[in-house]
Amino acid sequence: MTHELEQLFEFLRFPSISTDSRHAGDVRACGEWLVAKAGELGLSAELHDTPKHPVVLARNVHQQGRRHVLIYGHYDVQPVDPLHLWTSDPFQPEIRDGRIWARGATDNKGQMFAHLLGVGKTMAAAGDLPVNLTFLFEGEEEIGSPNLAGFLEQNRELLACDVIAVSDTGMVAPGTPTLGYGLRGITCGELIVRGPARDLHSGLFGGAVMNPATAVGQLIASLHDADGRIVIDGFYDDVRPLEAWEREMWAAVPGVSEEDFLKVTGAPSLFGEKGFTPAEQTWARPTAEVNGMGGGYQGEGSKTVLPAEAMAKFSFRLVPDQEPGDIIRKVKSHFEKHCPPGVTLEFIPGHDGKPYHTDPHGEFGKAAQEALRKSFGQEPVLIREGGSIPIVQSFREILGADTLLLGLALADAQIHSPDENFPVENFEAGIRMNQALLEELA
Amino acid sequence: MTHELEQLFEFLRFPSISTDSRHAGDVRACGEWLVAKAGELGLSAELHDTPKHPVVLARNVHQQGRRHVLIYGHYDVQPVDPLHLWTSDPFQPEIRDGRIWARGATDNKGQMFAHLLGVGKTMAAAGDLPVNLTFLFEGEEEIGSPNLAGFLEQNRELLACDVIAVSDTGMVAPGTPTLGYGLRGITCGELIVRGPARDLHSGLFGGAVMNPATAVGQLIASLHDADGRIVIDGFYDDVRPLEAWEREMWAAVPGVSEEDFLKVTGAPSLFGEKGFTPAEQTWARPTAEVNGMGGGYQGEGSKTVLPAEAMAKFSFRLVPDQEPGDIIRKVKSHFEKHCPPGVTLEFIPGHDGKPYHTDPHGEFGKAAQEALRKSFGQEPVLIREGGSIPIVQSFREILGADTLLLGLALADAQIHSPDENFPVENFEAGIRMNQALLEELA
Repeated sequence: MTHELEQLFEFLRFPSISTDSRHAGDVRACGEWLVAKAGELGLSAELHDTPKHPVVLARNVHQQGRRHVLIYGHYDVQPVDPLHLWTSDPFQPEIRDGRIWARGATDNKGQMFAHLLGVGKTMAAAGDLPVNLTFLFEGEEEIGSPNLAGFLEQNRELLACDVIAVSDTGMVAPGTPTLGYGLRGITCGELIVRGPARDLHSGLFGGAVMNPATAVGQLIASLHDADGRIVIDGFYDDVRPLEAWEREMWAAVPGVSEEDFLKVTGAPSLFGEKGFTPAEQTWARPTAEVNGMGGGYQGEGSKTVLPAEAMAKFSFRLVPDQEPGDIIRKVKSHFEKHCPPGVTLEFIPGHDGKPYHTDPHGEFGKAAQEALRKSFGQEPVLIREGGSIPIVQSFREILGADTLLLGLALADAQIHSPDENFPVENFEAGIRMNQALLEELA
Repeated sequence: MTHELEQLFEFLRFPSISTDSRHAGDVRACGEWLVAKAGELGLSAELHDTPKHPVVLARNVHQQGRRHVLIYGHYDVQPVDPLHLWTSDPFQPEIRDGRIWARGATDNKGQMFAHLLGVGKTMAAAGDLPVNLTFLFEGEEEIGSPNLAGFLEQNRELLACDVIAVSDTGMVAPGTPTLGYGLRGITCGELIVRGPARDLHSGLFGGAVMNPATAVGQLIASLHDADGRIVIDGFYDDVRPLEAWEREMWAAVPGVSEEDFLKVTGAPSLFGEKGFTPAEQTWARPTAEVNGMGGGYQGEGSKTVLPAEAMAKFSFRLVPDQEPGDIIRKVKSHFEKHCPPGVTLEFIPGHDGKPYHTDPHGEFGKAAQEALRKSFGQEPVLIREGGSIPIVQSFREILGADTLLLGLALADAQIHSPDENFPVENFEAGIRMNQALLEELA
């Protein structure tokens, strides 16, 4: 194993699960490890506390007259349950079939660490970088970056930059360099429906009392019509239509055909909003998803109760120019309007983030395309992205800079799922890409 | 504490939860204790093994020319979770506010044990009973009595009787003697909906793949219309309409007004099939209830997954002349017809039992009314019952005898729920009722 991989493995072993308060110490230890690592590579680095998990900043010695490039990544990861579906321990990385298997391998430790090692390599070879560089690594991306915007505000001058680069998005197919110019936003919420004061005998009372689990089912069902379109009043009002060049380019992008989606998801067949391809459905159309639901007896056998309450967790992916605050208000009104009689409804809004969109044909976009062309030896494709990196919108609003999305995540990377993985070749290409990118941006 | 209560407490301390295989030993120990207790009271008793939990039979010395009365009860109980909602340990009975608090206090240990003690009292006073008596106590009622019908078949001659008495139903109000002449039947099933091969990132794939939790929500919602009527094709085909005398009598029965239902259930308002009172909805109309549902992430915080699968458990309460086998086929077809594209559906039928109905104005019905009148000093009311005791239908089919339902369970007994309880006065009235009943039936 190369020294580069050994260092990545050390990084991956931290169970830095930001949503689980029991892992707060692990998140911090991981951040401290990053500070030390950046120091080893010749950068000056420090840990900055926030109300929750710390931010890591690392910089070379900045010189007047050079471009200031900010590279963002996150060192926190998603939870790992259901643990029994992992082939190997999510925090004991292994290499099998040319891939690194671990939680965070792709999202985002593997991608962000390639940038750090790329910088280390240039520093070791040339003594310095062609640009003024700042690394900004956060520990709260998977919980919606609650403190990063505040951190940007507080350090607005220190972080003021010309352009930002992020590798936390998709690469459409192995070896196909991919520049992202758009991200979906997100807004989340949890629904709790309460009925009787306690679980009731379904024989004695069934028929006279509304069942909260039935009510949650009805509320879930109220979100879509049979064509997969969301029927919340005004939900699509601000959705920007796809441009002709986008539909044309995406139709030719490898790795996103119906067959590819079927293969990667393992679904028996695809289903989405009528009139759009899977790439269009996931990159440029909004969604309403149930992330979890529960109520009543879920154990072995049967228990003939009429449950006292039931719940569902939702997330809505948003596209330009939908506003998370506007959408979550419409969602709440929708649920209130559709809640059946006989139960009470509590709706708890969760984290959110705006969708993002930039012109891929500008100066920095062209430089990024050139870096991709050089480091992969292929023409890059231009895509949007189904996931959400809300902070990209904050970069624009607070630092005034646009973000280049240089994705290295394959569709079968299984991020957020068991058996997350990252090809060794993408890790190595990421190191090369960082070196080419800083050169082009200079 | 009286010796009678002490003996009941001993009985209640067995955690005889029949659905949980870890408690199989407790169910058996409880049955053995009953055999010993019946022996102490002057009956000959024995334990009969079945493929699962044993049956207890106990008899006096039968004499030619006397009526043979069979009294049925069950010594198994429902699970106790959620345990934290109990005020005291479900298997450490306590008396508070004139009530006995324990799992099984009402359903069915308290009621069946009153019969056993009533028989013991008559035996002690008179040396014998006025009838040939057989007690049949089973340990599988809460899991649908899978082996009792077989046991009846095998012991058809031994158990051949003139009439059967069961106290496992409701008493409409404290002190109001209640004769039940009908029971709802039941049929159960579990639905598993599977979509992608694993939990997916809701950003990367949301919009192109059907969400199994959404599908379960849609299937739950497909069961009812906005008026609370079940819209499964042919569901109501065999439902026998209410008779005029029933609607008239039930309108006058105490304890079953809308206010009573609201108070007992704690629901914010009632909701059921339009055009029927709560008593009619629960005693004479069928239902479709979700007993449990689950899928995706139900823990703290959020996890933006598109779950690989989701499930729901259902029970359908049936009324004369619906057939469980016919209904569960209709339910299965309904789910298959309404399952959205992009997911697969597995439907697993569960236990079932036919609805029961008899004429309360026949010879034995009149005798039971007289026994109730004598032991409570009040005119009895005639009702049906929302719960299911499938074995009552088997008694009719295999033993050829009808069943008298002499219920002692109050609406706030919280059977199947935390804080199950039984008034001490109902326990004592049950002992008196047993003595009067055997006299009247003789």
